[in-house]
Amino acid sequence: MRTQVAIIGGGPSGLLLAQLLHKRGIDSVVLERKTKDYVLSRIRAGVLEQGLVRLMEEAGCADRLHAEGHAHHGALIAYGDEMFRIDFSALTGTPVIVYGQTEVTRDLYAAREVAGGVIEFNVEDVTIHEADSDAPHVTYNVAGEARRIDCDFIAGCDGFHGVSRQAIPLSARREYEKVYPFGWLGILSETPPVNAELIYANSPRGFALCSMRNENLSRYYIQCSLSDRSEDWTDDAFWRELKRRIPSDQADRLVTGPSIEKSIAPLRSFVTEPMRWGRLFLCGDAAHIVPPTGAKGLNTAASDVRYLYTGLRQFYENGSTDGIDSYCAKALARVWKVERFSWWFSSLMHRYPDQSEFDLRIQVAELEFLRSNCAAQRAMAENYVGLPY
Amino acid sequence: MRTQVAIIGGGPSGLLLAQLLHKRGIDSVVLERKTKDYVLSRIRAGVLEQGLVRLMEEAGCADRLHAEGHAHHGALIAYGDEMFRIDFSALTGTPVIVYGQTEVTRDLYAAREVAGGVIEFNVEDVTIHEADSDAPHVTYNVAGEARRIDCDFIAGCDGFHGVSRQAIPLSARREYEKVYPFGWLGILSETPPVNAELIYANSPRGFALCSMRNENLSRYYIQCSLSDRSEDWTDDAFWRELKRRIPSDQADRLVTGPSIEKSIAPLRSFVTEPMRWGRLFLCGDAAHIVPPTGAKGLNTAASDVRYLYTGLRQFYENGSTDGIDSYCAKALARVWKVERFSWWFSSLMHRYPDQSEFDLRIQVAELEFLRSNCAAQRAMAENYVGLPY
Repeated sequence: MRTQVAIIGGGPSGLLLAQLLHKRGIDSVVLERKTKDYVLSRIRAGVLEQGLVRLMEEAGCADRLHAEGHAHHGALIAYGDEMFRIDFSALTGTPVIVYGQTEVTRDLYAAREVAGGVIEFNVEDVTIHEADSDAPHVTYNVAGEARRIDCDFIAGCDGFHGVSRQAIPLSARREYEKVYPFGWLGILSETPPVNAELIYANSPRGFALCSMRNENLSRYYIQCSLSDRSEDWTDDAFWRELKRRIPSDQADRLVTGPSIEKSIAPLRSFVTEPMRWGRLFLCGDAAHIVPPTGAKGLNTAASDVRYLYTGLRQFYENGSTDGIDSYCAKALARVWKVERFSWWFSSLMHRYPDQSEFDLRIQVAELEFLRSNCAAQRAMAENYVGLPY
Repeated sequence: MRTQVAIIGGGPSGLLLAQLLHKRGIDSVVLERKTKDYVLSRIRAGVLEQGLVRLMEEAGCADRLHAEGHAHHGALIAYGDEMFRIDFSALTGTPVIVYGQTEVTRDLYAAREVAGGVIEFNVEDVTIHEADSDAPHVTYNVAGEARRIDCDFIAGCDGFHGVSRQAIPLSARREYEKVYPFGWLGILSETPPVNAELIYANSPRGFALCSMRNENLSRYYIQCSLSDRSEDWTDDAFWRELKRRIPSDQADRLVTGPSIEKSIAPLRSFVTEPMRWGRLFLCGDAAHIVPPTGAKGLNTAASDVRYLYTGLRQFYENGSTDGIDSYCAKALARVWKVERFSWWFSSLMHRYPDQSEFDLRIQVAELEFLRSNCAAQRAMAENYVGLPY
């Protein structure tokens, strides 16, 4: 099989890239290791930057997002019983949109199906060949049958555990990592959110986040030990702990109910450099991971997709390699800014096992500085709604 | 002897308080453990916030400061060979004033002498008695003679190693501390400054600061090991190391010369709470220490003096205790913000022995975010020129 762009990974990055390319008449094949149902069962973040919304529009996939997504003009930051609001719209002119990553993926699948886009599911043994030559190709197996795709370019959108990053020789790669000494225990419950806006809470008992998907679907998280297992947390224990970590007036009006999903995720910061190797381009989690504080994972994957899509368009429409040649530098410049923000916001909001009393007071001082200083709020808000490309 | 306010410590905080009180007809005695010459031989920072300048004006001691001080409308931040400017005046409407702490102290001594203010030098065994009663008093020895001062209030302006903080029972005190794993090796030299504005440099070899007192008196610092001894650093070795830490175009034009002072200072963050104990009020280094990055030591001492002076005036002029009752809360709220800034700016600019490759990249990302983001620059500038009282 031959295509212009082989896309490894059928998550939102790969699908968005495929759909954007399709709109410009550029041909792609998407390879996904799992089934569509499996991909759609993964619960992920649900706060979209306008940059991602614009891309979804350009991909022709934004109708449901516009109908069902909720503009959030601010978010709340709590510490102890104190709480203040960061007014994103007043500070930056831009809200964020609450709409689940699962829904983004669903909309992209629907669009790919309408367009007759080729997606191979259940692929195994995906291998990238000769990425640094003019004749890259990908081999894989489906149901025991060996297949091969020849292509102009390969987009590695297969996440942190995917094969794409590994196709860059270790000698040519440099990796940066920070593993946080805690995880997030998250639940999804069919209850009305405790607040119309997200609450990020720094409590003596650890971080908590009150988030939501819609008026009757709430997403809550609490910082937990890495040794915790989600099956050991009863719903009751979760709700009890959450209530102790948010301001008491919020806890009083929290509506609890059975969880419909419960899981623990570790927190990690990770960047690999370069993000381009010959004709292979890494996008999203394949190249970088951020801790979820600030909801930058999908949004940053989308900014990679934007840079890559722009470069590929320039190549196919004008024969210019400027865009693909500058992909790595542009993507990484933004990635590191996002890494900084996610690290900073995580550092501000969590309890760390090695924090001294001084460190704890500095955390409160930083929260109070953020509360009282308009410039600090603006810097935070500009990061939260999405830095310029 | 009886006075209204017994002031322990004849450094700039104690003298400034004495002079401000004097202008309002409030009587004080200053007790200083050393001689005036010793106090004036201590080399300290030389960047004044406008808030301190205003206080010096109110104390009637600002003439020479206005004549000889230099307004700095910005400062430079370097990392590797990159350099950018933070424009304080454009961002905040306010410059900082470069004028040595030694000169501030000299001007205050001159004013105290003109006013006939009582300063006891070479005092020993200073002891604070019954600070938490209505009859506080201070005893001390001068040349073997025991003396006693009865007073309404005691101001503890005697620095980190002074006795005032120790007068608050340990059970009533809480201390917060961070000791940094490096020091600053500083020299003073009669050479023209390498640049008209200060340069703060983050280099792979460690932090460096190019500062000055005037057109022909430069003050340079380099981050050094805590085990270094200043006598082991020749002037040549210092200049060589400094040149390797600042952008090469700056290094090329650096004028070197013999040092007229050379010393190593450790870096520490420290806060004690409360800052008031009955009729004893701690000011400046007696209550808090910041690392010198950002030059907040003297300026924050001055903001304490301002709160205390305001409170004492209200007490003596109107009989109101509102100002002295709110002293501790007001002073500490500002102190913690300054602690946060000094810690942040130190963290941004130094090399730490335990920094991972990820941490180093986050440092660069933060420098590049600061370089590119106006709100981040404004937040930094507002701290640098001095937060509002």
